[in-house]
Order: sequence, then C-alpha cells, then structure tokens
Amino acid sequence: MNLIDMGMRAQNAARVLAVSSAEARNAALTACARALLDHQNEILAQNALDLAAGTDSGLSPAMLDRLALTEARIAGMADGIRAVRDLPDPLNRVLENRVLSSGLLLEKISVPIGVIAVVYEARPNVTADSAALCLKSGNAVILRGGKEAIRSNTAIADALRAAVASAGLPEDAVQLVSDTSRESAAQLMRLNGYVDVLIPRGGKGLIRAVVENASVPVIETGAGTCHVYVDKEADLGMAAEILFNAKASRPSVCNACECVLVHKDVAEQFLPRAAKLLSQKNVEIRGDARVCAVLPCAVPATDEDWGKEYNDYILAAKVVDSIDEAMEHIYRYGTKHSECIVTENDEAAERFLNEVDAAAVYLNASTRFTDGGEFGMGAEIGISTQKLHARGPLGVRELTSMKYKLRGKGQVR
Amino acid sequence: MNLIDMGMRAQNAARVLAVSSAEARNAALTACARALLDHQNEILAQNALDLAAGTDSGLSPAMLDRLALTEARIAGMADGIRAVRDLPDPLNRVLENRVLSSGLLLEKISVPIGVIAVVYEARPNVTADSAALCLKSGNAVILRGGKEAIRSNTAIADALRAAVASAGLPEDAVQLVSDTSRESAAQLMRLNGYVDVLIPRGGKGLIRAVVENASVPVIETGAGTCHVYVDKEADLGMAAEILFNAKASRPSVCNACECVLVHKDVAEQFLPRAAKLLSQKNVEIRGDARVCAVLPCAVPATDEDWGKEYNDYILAAKVVDSIDEAMEHIYRYGTKHSECIVTENDEAAERFLNEVDAAAVYLNASTRFTDGGEFGMGAEIGISTQKLHARGPLGVRELTSMKYKLRGKGQVR
Repeated sequence: MNLIDMGMRAQNAARVLAVSSAEARNAALTACARALLDHQNEILAQNALDLAAGTDSGLSPAMLDRLALTEARIAGMADGIRAVRDLPDPLNRVLENRVLSSGLLLEKISVPIGVIAVVYEARPNVTADSAALCLKSGNAVILRGGKEAIRSNTAIADALRAAVASAGLPEDAVQLVSDTSRESAAQLMRLNGYVDVLIPRGGKGLIRAVVENASVPVIETGAGTCHVYVDKEADLGMAAEILFNAKASRPSVCNACECVLVHKDVAEQFLPRAAKLLSQKNVEIRGDARVCAVLPCAVPATDEDWGKEYNDYILAAKVVDSIDEAMEHIYRYGTKHSECIVTENDEAAERFLNEVDAAAVYLNASTRFTDGGEFGMGAEIGISTQKLHARGPLGVRELTSMKYKLRGKGQVR
Repeated sequence: MNLIDMGMRAQNAARVLAVSSAEARNAALTACARALLDHQNEILAQNALDLAAGTDSGLSPAMLDRLALTEARIAGMADGIRAVRDLPDPLNRVLENRVLSSGLLLEKISVPIGVIAVVYEARPNVTADSAALCLKSGNAVILRGGKEAIRSNTAIADALRAAVASAGLPEDAVQLVSDTSRESAAQLMRLNGYVDVLIPRGGKGLIRAVVENASVPVIETGAGTCHVYVDKEADLGMAAEILFNAKASRPSVCNACECVLVHKDVAEQFLPRAAKLLSQKNVEIRGDARVCAVLPCAVPATDEDWGKEYNDYILAAKVVDSIDEAMEHIYRYGTKHSECIVTENDEAAERFLNEVDAAAVYLNASTRFTDGGEFGMGAEIGISTQKLHARGPLGVRELTSMKYKLRGKGQVR
C-alpha cells in the first residue's frame, strides 16, 4: 500500500474539485446515490462475506449489527447522499467583504479544505456518508475503514468512484485504503503535505491513538459524558421527561446523558419520579449516598462512575447543594460535549448557559439534540469535542476553509 | 519544571477569564502597558544580561538585534498592548441565531479557546504581544520563549502578571516557562487536556519540530514562499513597483516575495525594468535560462531555487509560457501563503484569484499586505499556513472558539 501515491492522487482530485461547479458536484452525488442502488447485489454479497468472517472471528452481536447491510439500509445510504446533495453549496460564500485602509478590496471566501482523511471502524455506511459530505464540500477523501468491513467498503467505494467518474469528476475524489493494518492507519496519520485534516470516527481507543500519533491536523470527535442538572426551580415533570429522553432514547450515542445532578431541595420529589420513568427501560441508577437514601433501587456509585461514558442503560446520579457545585462537577468530569440545565429561574439559566464550557449547552431540552440534522446542518461527519476549527456537529460548512482575495490598483506597502 | 502544574493553573485562570467582562480584560491590558513602562529599568537590565550572554555565545548580529530592547522598543510594546486593548471585544459575538424545527432557539456565540501555548525564539516582544492578544480574547497563555531571551522574558512576564493581578484578574492568565530546555518544549507539545492549541512562532526548524511531535492541536504559522506573476497583459510599471516592494521592502518576513514568474511575451520589456529597480537594494536575481538570456546580471538558478524561502535580498525568476504554467509552478513550489498576479485582463485575474490556493491571493498589489494590521484585524499572533481553524493573519477573533446555546421548553427527541 503506497499511501503517498494515494495522497498525490487525492491532491490532484482536490485541485479539480476546488474549481468544480456546484452543479457538477451535485450531479456526481446523484450518480453516487443511484450507483449504490444499482450495485446493491454486489454490495450485499460482499457484506455477507464480511458478516460470515465476523461471525467466525467472534464479533459481538452489536458489532455484527453495525456491520450488517440490508436493502433498506442501502436505500437509506442513497437517501442520505441525496439529502447531502440538496444542501446549500458551502463553497464560494462571501464571509467578509470590505475595503482596507490601503484601498485594497478584501473578500473572504469559503473554499474546500483539500484532502480529508477519515479513519473509522466497522460501519460501512460511514463510507458513503463521508464520501458524500466531502464531495459536496469540494474535498477529496481518503477513507480508512476497519478490517471487519473491508469487503463491504470496497464494494461501496468502487460504486462511488465509478459514479463520480461518470459525472465527469475525478474518481480519486473518493479513495479507500485497502490495507486495514495498524500500519496503514499510522502512516495516514503522518501523511503531512498530503492530508489537510484527519477525522477519526469511532471509539475512545481509536480517537486516543489518532490524537497521540497524528502529525497531520486532527479534529477530535465523539467523546460524550453529558450531564443533566435539575435545578431547585425546575419543572420536575419536564425534568424527568428530559432526563428519560437524554438517557434512554439511544444510550449508545455520544449525546446521551450519563449523569444527572439534582439540587438537594428537590431530590426527594424528583428522584422517585425520574426513577419510575427510567425503570421502563430498566436503567440502572448508580447514586451517591444522598441519592441512595432517597432511592432504594439505586446502586451505590464509586469514584469511577463520575465522568464515565457508559453508552448503556446506566445512569450516574448525584445530589448537589447548589448550581455552583453542579457546574464544578461538570467542569471536572464533563467532556465539553453537551450539558443541560432544567430550571424555570432565568438567572440560573443564564449562569449555566454562560459559564458551562461545552459545544452545546441546553436550557430545558434534551442533550440528544446535538446532531447535524437537528441543528439544520444536514448530515454530519462527526461531532467535534475540540475547540479548534469547529465545535459540535461537523456538517458540510465545517468541512470548508477560507481564503482572502484582495484586489488592488498597484498598492505597495 | 512541572508543566502539568502550569497547565492546571492556566486552566483555572482560563475559567475566570471566560466569564470576565470586556471592561475587566481591557483594564488589565491598560495595567500591562503601564507596567512595561514602570518596569523599564529592570527589563532593560535583564535584557543587557541576555545580550552579554548572547554575545559571549556567538549569536549573529541579526539575532542580537532581534533580542535587543531599548526604551523606544519597550514603548512600542506598550503601545501595541494598548492598540490590542482598543480592538472590539471578540467574545460573546452572536454568530448565528435561529429557531430549529424542534422549536429550540439556537444561538452560536464566540467564546475563548481556553489555554493557548506559544513557543517562540529570541524576540522578547513576542512575550508582550502574545500575552496581550490572549488576554483580549479571554484566553490564558503559556509562553515558552527561547533561552537567549529568558532573562528579558522573565522580567516582562513578571511585570505583566503583577499588572493582571492588580486589575483583579488571575496572574496565571500569563505564565512563562522558565525551563528553556528542549524537554520543556516537548512536554508542552504533548500537554493534552491542558493546552487547547499550540502556536509555534519562529523558523522552519521550530515549526517542523512542533508539527512532528505535538499531540495537542497546532496552528502552523509562518512558512512563506510567495510569488508574483507578471501576466502578458500587466501594466509593467505597476508590476515592477509591486515586485520591488514585495521583494525588497522587508525580505526577512514571510509575506515577502521569493520568486517572480514572467509571461514570455513581456519578459524582454519587464525584466530589465524590474532589475533596475531591484538593483537599488542590490537584489541578486537567480534566473532560468530565458531570464538569463535577457538579463546579463542574473545568476543561473538551480533546481533548489524554486520554492526556496531566502528571507534575503535574493529573488528567483522564471519565464513562463502561460498563466497555467505560472499557476502550476505556484501549486508545486508555493507554501499557500500569499500569491500575486499583475494583470489588466479580467479573465486572467479571476482565474488566478479563484484557482490559486493560498491564504491570500492578490490582484495588482504587493504580497506584503498579508498582515493583521493591514487587514484591519489589529495585531496578529502569527500567520497561519494551514487550512484548519484559520488561515492568514491570526488576530483576536481567530483566537476564539464558539459554543451553541440552546433554549427550549421541555423538548425531547
């Protein structure tokens, strides 16, 4: 596997994409969506081989489910590509436009980033999603999926490449790394001069490996230990519904709530009410001493429960003396992803919204809304938990950079 | 040297800064400017020790000049701090404000990045400039200057820290790493969880070491191999003035021109005219065969001259057959910093502005304008040559991140 060669091909494709019209990129996306449906049988056949190999090698049922494709899932991928196509063009937006004191006319314009590398694990739909988001935003993409999905990914990428070429754009706009060894991922992380940004999508181990080892610019994604703070002036019915939704509607995702913090004045009323709702989904509550005193069903929490990302039907719970203690806990144990206060008190609400440092801070709403679709950005390539470049859902606009165009009449300095 | 301890102090200071008022930060900047003047004698005395040590260890005259402080230079640093103070507040700007389909009210607000680390070399003014830009933008800063300037930097940082404290903000908003060993820089580059972004300011070796070794997010700065392309429809008098300014007004900086590309149709007229101007500053011209055929004074260029950052009174020169050849040369050898076309032809101008990928692309103006001050951004902490987060001059706005505030009425998903 010659990743430098792939990097050069990606750069050449990126040059063409950077000056392509929105119409040409949209036509390529239309062709991509159709190609997935046209090649459905090959993709399903290759996926069956991946699933058989995965079963043999003892993948967990959850992993096998993430890996599995069906006609409906392929149709969903095609729909997703068309939805990305129908987003507004993120390129050539005029971000600023002003005359400098020198008389130069300055325009700040959105442009593609260039070459985006995506390192991910077993989900083959990431191949189609990432390719579509990059194509829409004029970027070439180098995809490095996990070995469990290599046959499925190859079939998908082949279909997409042919579709891009059929629409008159370079097939190397989409490339898949066929070598799924650790070495290929490591090499991609250090492909400076070819890769403009690397986005890891996957579990903590993957993210950590990328952050530790990459020399190319990285956007960290995905770690989410989100809290719901129930203030002493909360509407307790609303608070219970928000907590139930944030915890139990889809516990495996990064915007799910992992810990509830309850003001001491309302703990006795709120906790039994919330526990009753949560018991519908058999959520295990791990509480501090004050929670356990109110809730006989709660399991005593240990120090390891604070800040823990369960991604499961488990909830840490703590009684706090004040909003300050709640914010201090969030500062110490949160991952700056999504944090929520439930309160009817304006002053408490504004303090929390201003003082809590996270990509998304909620008043009286579930943390589950941190999502490109919900934010009106269309699909997302991940949720950034770093503060550089972009924070929160990464949609097509977040996959752009900018440049300054300056028009003069002979000005010198 | 316990950098983790410094990281924790910086984070605590950053928390206070993030919720401080613009007035409080401006008052701290006023105090900083005054403190430099009040402590002028100590700073000059420490600088004299640095200069003596530098002379003993054989620093070059250019290095000694960059290291040297005078009353006028300290006054300049104080003026710089006040100019940063007088910029508009970059925080709490409403970047977006809309109602989502769920009914949530979304606000996207500018916030500080958090903790910024700056690694730099021998110039003590970087200490004051960086501290001022970070303070204005609500960030805590960890400064790691070169060993040549450690006494000067310590005196400056001590004055600034006391000034910040006197204005009621935490002195740890500004910290200087007293250990100037390679190990301290290496440790800072891997201080994940404490440092939100690291900005290297200095020569190529420093930038490369940071890019290779850092695991914290980095903004690359400073590499500039800028070109001026003189089109066949250029105003040749204007082109010569622009080239002369871009090359010779200050050759040591990154926005200086290193290479001129001349269309073959105008080479015979343009090159002697430009050479005459450039000879005023004894600029050495290293030309390809076609340049040397026209200009007897030119030295034959070798392959190493293309893409070279001389930072000196030397200019590479090449005759090209077309605008396409010029853009191809820039693609291959440029550093995506600043590139210029001189032409009266609108079509050529628009092609160059659209197709050349650089932080700043100029029509009929000197590349020397790529500068925070000239762009109306105030001072800059560096010029980014990467495409993530910010490109071109990094002013106080570029030292901010953002967060989403979402206000609901009990929405769940």
